[in-house]
Amino acid sequence: MRPKSNAYLFMATANFLTDEKLLIVGAGGMIGSNMAMIAALLRLTPNICLYDVYEPGNNGVLLEMQHSAFPRMRFIATTDPKEAFTGAKYIISSGGAPRKEGMTREDLLKGNCEIAAGLGDNIRKYCPEVKHVVIIFNPADVTALTVLIHSGLRPCRVSSLAALDSTRLQTNLAKEFGVRQSDVENAFTYGGHGESMAVFMSKATICGTPIARMGLTKERIEAIKQETIQGGAQIIKLRGRSSIQSPAYLSIKAIEAAIRGGEQFPWPSGTYVDTHEYSHVFMAMPTFMDETGIHYTMPEGNKEEMADLKASYDHLVDLRDQIIELGIIPPVDEWHKMNPYLWNRRLPRIK
Amino acid sequence: MRPKSNAYLFMATANFLTDEKLLIVGAGGMIGSNMAMIAALLRLTPNICLYDVYEPGNNGVLLEMQHSAFPRMRFIATTDPKEAFTGAKYIISSGGAPRKEGMTREDLLKGNCEIAAGLGDNIRKYCPEVKHVVIIFNPADVTALTVLIHSGLRPCRVSSLAALDSTRLQTNLAKEFGVRQSDVENAFTYGGHGESMAVFMSKATICGTPIARMGLTKERIEAIKQETIQGGAQIIKLRGRSSIQSPAYLSIKAIEAAIRGGEQFPWPSGTYVDTHEYSHVFMAMPTFMDETGIHYTMPEGNKEEMADLKASYDHLVDLRDQIIELGIIPPVDEWHKMNPYLWNRRLPRIK
Repeated sequence: MRPKSNAYLFMATANFLTDEKLLIVGAGGMIGSNMAMIAALLRLTPNICLYDVYEPGNNGVLLEMQHSAFPRMRFIATTDPKEAFTGAKYIISSGGAPRKEGMTREDLLKGNCEIAAGLGDNIRKYCPEVKHVVIIFNPADVTALTVLIHSGLRPCRVSSLAALDSTRLQTNLAKEFGVRQSDVENAFTYGGHGESMAVFMSKATICGTPIARMGLTKERIEAIKQETIQGGAQIIKLRGRSSIQSPAYLSIKAIEAAIRGGEQFPWPSGTYVDTHEYSHVFMAMPTFMDETGIHYTMPEGNKEEMADLKASYDHLVDLRDQIIELGIIPPVDEWHKMNPYLWNRRLPRIK
Repeated sequence: MRPKSNAYLFMATANFLTDEKLLIVGAGGMIGSNMAMIAALLRLTPNICLYDVYEPGNNGVLLEMQHSAFPRMRFIATTDPKEAFTGAKYIISSGGAPRKEGMTREDLLKGNCEIAAGLGDNIRKYCPEVKHVVIIFNPADVTALTVLIHSGLRPCRVSSLAALDSTRLQTNLAKEFGVRQSDVENAFTYGGHGESMAVFMSKATICGTPIARMGLTKERIEAIKQETIQGGAQIIKLRGRSSIQSPAYLSIKAIEAAIRGGEQFPWPSGTYVDTHEYSHVFMAMPTFMDETGIHYTMPEGNKEEMADLKASYDHLVDLRDQIIELGIIPPVDEWHKMNPYLWNRRLPRIK
């Protein structure tokens, strides 16, 4: 009854979206290894490189992937940046250091932005032709900005994971009204993360009904915002570890959208913003992603929401200025020396 | 550019295989939570129940699934067996206890088989109509046997995860010959797990060439067998934890095959065996899985392989007799009192 051969798998298996190289940075960790598995499951490409500075963990993840026997997948694992980055067309990096006991927030900022600078340098050196890079290690807006500056890539080629705040908002609104998550639409968060995110829900609908008509009190709105901000902390409290499945899934879905033929990514991403009002930062915006990269529009909200966005932006400018102070990225006016696409429009252009 | 609504997800998303309830037992753990994610990714059913005795972990996993915002999924989490098992049509259980410091192998056997007995009792009580149950907690052959006896289910409704040994063998043969894994065919392991597995590779082909013509020395064959047996231990050594992605993926793929319309599962599973030679045990066999359950044929191998299978069977009989001794399952001749489908053919049937 059992087929004598597994050759039929070659035929039965859906095609891959591409055969270009996907590099997973930090593949030895819990998020990174889930990313590898999800990318294989979603058939993005057969060509996945696992890269981590911690060799045993990386090799262990390689074995896990091999033992899964995903049809036609070709995984390789390496600790050599040259081997990892050369030829990479898509990169997704969860490879930051977690905050450890006794570390200040600034220590974490410095440590992870230095890692981001190294990542950007590797991209510049080995794969300037990369099509899209998704950064998910915290604080993702500034690590992604650091990668962008150091890599020399076009701004549309780099994004950061911001979707989790919006999916948490959706989760909490669905609970509030006792509806399915997909019945909650047009509720998103923009700007930064955590305390400084700007929650845009004035245009949300619940089963098609505008939220303004749902009778939410100011107190409930504030409680839902707070619960959304605490979404990550809540997982740590319950599981004893920070989230590992949701960031892996959402970031792979973002990369999928950047591959020709991939499903559209329906959540905001962090993107390099350069408008009259907001400039020289990475922040979550209404975004659209396809094989040409990431594109953004301005969020539409009421006065309060727009003021929250401005406050969130100011916070991101502060964070950015801290890493300029630390010497990890140059002052804004000198960014174009590292990345010609980041010309400061306020300066006269040299002809 | 960005669609103003995510309503299009309703249309863009592939249909589910079924809308029947899938119960994940042990969902709060690392394997269980990956199972939940993979089942959602593979669109098996929108109707997934997360069950774990450890409430905070289980609720944390529920949040992870909600924050992933898988389109149209409906997850629930519970610690109440009645709520969990009632109406379950597919069950997959990773919910055993891991071996802890100072525990003997017998302590583990006793502890996990008692958990399996409780699982079987819950099935009998709340969901005797379940269509398929996959057991993956160790020692899986005896825990699955215990579930079968206690649940009162037909033998074709219960299987255990055995594929990992075969995928490890495939991985090792692919490495040996420097070919892709899918170029290695007809290499499987049967019988029990670990030291006692029977490795069947005399009929294997490498890129279509019979392995006998590939010039493998006896020493290399033995080394490959040993590496396969040590596959799980190697992951623990490298990652500092036992495997979590590969067992989750393979067991969800096994459940998928038991759902009408699911992809065929190309690996051996553990099944209740009742032939002239091998009887009253659970062991890995060449199996075929579809919505009618699991079906097996006899492995075909050379003399040595068949002798290995017999030795593996003898070991499984020993393990079984240990849990009979411990009083977790009744003596073989009394199994039919708990499960009428397990009539001992050696006894005259009462008319």
